[in-house]
Amino acid sequence: MTQEALRIGIAGLGTVGCGALSLLERNAALITARAGRKIDVRSVSSRDRSKKRPVNLSAYEWCDDPLEMVKQDDIDVIVELIGGEDGVAKDLCEQALACGKHVVTANKAMLAHHGYDLAKAAELSNVQLMYEAAVAGAIPVVKALREGFAGNAIQAVYGILNGTCNYILTEMRETGRDFDDVLAEAQEKGYTEADPTFDVDGIDAAHKLCILSSLAFGVKPDFEALKITGIRNITSGDIAYAEELGYRIKLLGATCSDQSGISQSVEPCLVREDSTIGSVEGVFNTVLIEADAIDSGQLIGRGAGAEPTASAVIADLIDIARGAKTPTFGLPHDALVTLKCADYGTKTSRFYVRLVVRDQVGVLAAVSSILSDHKVSVEALMQQGRDPNNPVSIVLTTHEVSRADIDAALADIKKLDAILSEPSLLRIEDF
Amino acid sequence: MTQEALRIGIAGLGTVGCGALSLLERNAALITARAGRKIDVRSVSSRDRSKKRPVNLSAYEWCDDPLEMVKQDDIDVIVELIGGEDGVAKDLCEQALACGKHVVTANKAMLAHHGYDLAKAAELSNVQLMYEAAVAGAIPVVKALREGFAGNAIQAVYGILNGTCNYILTEMRETGRDFDDVLAEAQEKGYTEADPTFDVDGIDAAHKLCILSSLAFGVKPDFEALKITGIRNITSGDIAYAEELGYRIKLLGATCSDQSGISQSVEPCLVREDSTIGSVEGVFNTVLIEADAIDSGQLIGRGAGAEPTASAVIADLIDIARGAKTPTFGLPHDALVTLKCADYGTKTSRFYVRLVVRDQVGVLAAVSSILSDHKVSVEALMQQGRDPNNPVSIVLTTHEVSRADIDAALADIKKLDAILSEPSLLRIEDF
Repeated sequence: MTQEALRIGIAGLGTVGCGALSLLERNAALITARAGRKIDVRSVSSRDRSKKRPVNLSAYEWCDDPLEMVKQDDIDVIVELIGGEDGVAKDLCEQALACGKHVVTANKAMLAHHGYDLAKAAELSNVQLMYEAAVAGAIPVVKALREGFAGNAIQAVYGILNGTCNYILTEMRETGRDFDDVLAEAQEKGYTEADPTFDVDGIDAAHKLCILSSLAFGVKPDFEALKITGIRNITSGDIAYAEELGYRIKLLGATCSDQSGISQSVEPCLVREDSTIGSVEGVFNTVLIEADAIDSGQLIGRGAGAEPTASAVIADLIDIARGAKTPTFGLPHDALVTLKCADYGTKTSRFYVRLVVRDQVGVLAAVSSILSDHKVSVEALMQQGRDPNNPVSIVLTTHEVSRADIDAALADIKKLDAILSEPSLLRIEDF
Repeated sequence: MTQEALRIGIAGLGTVGCGALSLLERNAALITARAGRKIDVRSVSSRDRSKKRPVNLSAYEWCDDPLEMVKQDDIDVIVELIGGEDGVAKDLCEQALACGKHVVTANKAMLAHHGYDLAKAAELSNVQLMYEAAVAGAIPVVKALREGFAGNAIQAVYGILNGTCNYILTEMRETGRDFDDVLAEAQEKGYTEADPTFDVDGIDAAHKLCILSSLAFGVKPDFEALKITGIRNITSGDIAYAEELGYRIKLLGATCSDQSGISQSVEPCLVREDSTIGSVEGVFNTVLIEADAIDSGQLIGRGAGAEPTASAVIADLIDIARGAKTPTFGLPHDALVTLKCADYGTKTSRFYVRLVVRDQVGVLAAVSSILSDHKVSVEALMQQGRDPNNPVSIVLTTHEVSRADIDAALADIKKLDAILSEPSLLRIEDF
């Protein structure tokens, strides 16, 4: 070993921080051989020193304030695992980059909101800003887009990017239970945060999608340009109807580029159950990339958890140890352009619609007539049973139709007396 | 653009060579921006200058002899797309590396047989030997193993690595046709080589698996240590029985490490039809990696074709342009060890067995008794109809059993009078 060790400081000793420490320790010989030099943890920092952790910290210098690490001359890389869009995580990364230290981070919220400024800071200091762990855990998708598919003009990136949502939707499908019931169990088992908002409302997936957009299309990350719908309103009925039609419901991130611009969305969609994306179940994540040379490429893996996420952190460290010089979002910062939104309304898709109606004569005719007025062509229609005393569901799928037309049709349908609750509208993606 | 262009010579202008030229031209601006410098094709070489090609060669210097390129001072990288285990391809790579030029190659046969010597030569000259295009076409699996999962102790790598075989098996399943029939059609349509041996007998997949082994376990590529069975003996009956049991038949490469050593095989296996590997159909390839930190990760994409393979070549060139310094097989050459074969006989699996028998009283009892003598426990058994005048098939699946035991049982079963042809034995992999 001729090269000196790569010296690192780890800020944040939660699940991922402890996972990184234990992985670095267990696979130390292997990692040193592959990196060509030792990866040496000098300092660690966390909010609470006394907290019980699954790793022994006695070999590392303790910093009460993570910002102290920036001043340490014997640290080459700051590993930021604190999290949060702003605050100390951002201060730490900014200061580290400014004084010429590489940064490895798992902080998707920070990158989605401040990615451009941080990329610029890294480039001006000629250091690496690496974040494989920020998107889809163990899946090396940042590397795939930034390096593996770098010869391609990317057309679209789709992803199941939140393991909690995919777990809930899988569990709902397999057991027929409702959302609230499965969520409560997931919280009890510690699969989700106490406040599940970031997961189930799609915010976490949206942060990740925003980063993927930037990598795919060379745009500055633009979180505000994202349309986000979570999975709270998905019923066990929707899942059962979808299954009957040969589909599964997935919280799907999608970023697509066409002449009019880029459309970014996170919303529940129907995907074919026998597709390679439909077969990704439980806590697994996946990313599907469509591009001019490869046609399509897909990656599947665990999207969260101590060691899967730590694996991504260590891969970034090994890249830095090997001397990698890769621009943060695949392009020099001054080549990143401002995202231009595609016209959401003109984008065409097939759709799934579920209406809850009072079972009375003429409802179907009224609905059909409105759909037809808005140029929405129905592909299949199911009405479950007949029961004049109780609400019944009408489920239909459409042929290709613009979002504007289906939205306008549903707005009119909602005005009908017989419609008893907010219609469900889900995009169908036929991969 | 402050850095000078990366100057390349391309040897071999078949499908992939022409694909690389057209991709470099079409996405030139994008590739220059991502690589941080222009990728400039200086020279090209091929056997036949006058052959009609889909690209215009007038801008490039023509070399009748690819070895001339090695002497050109204005070439930094040789892109070897000639193919073949030895001969001019190997001479070219050896000479290029020896005189300090980087090499990018798609040549799996050469790497499977001479990978170690070439890796050593690259390291001694301090240049890169890159070969993403050699394994699974567009899928960035070399990068995933060498970089993305570099923090992991790899346990096993499985792959559908030959698109021709996967196409044939998919077509057989979907149409119920037999192997010879589908192969003939594939040859007619130009999907396979005139001589399909390398594809259908598993050699091509074995070359790729051999490279994956080396990347996964830090061993010198050892093609001789591979057990190879192709798909010629798979019948439409096998495929139908497998489907009835919930499985699909795939030509599966597998390299696994345990205490006893490494087992490398390419053979048709049953995989669950609803698994993420079972849903990879047609010409698509996939690689599944099991490792200590990630648990499992999978990549899917096109395994061949002009532009999918060219995408991998260009990715390697962009890496070199960005200054990547990655050891050929993920470790310095002198850290690569000689492969120690695991004991094939003691490896346990579940198996699928098909026997063609004369329908007479006592056959099933005799077979059952032999299986039981060899400690082979039967999980399920199907006998199709009864017909004393014609051969009938007995299909069974076993519980976990060692290869040695099932082989010994089949050897005894074959001695029975009622057995009319060579039994089919296929491993079951429950991913």
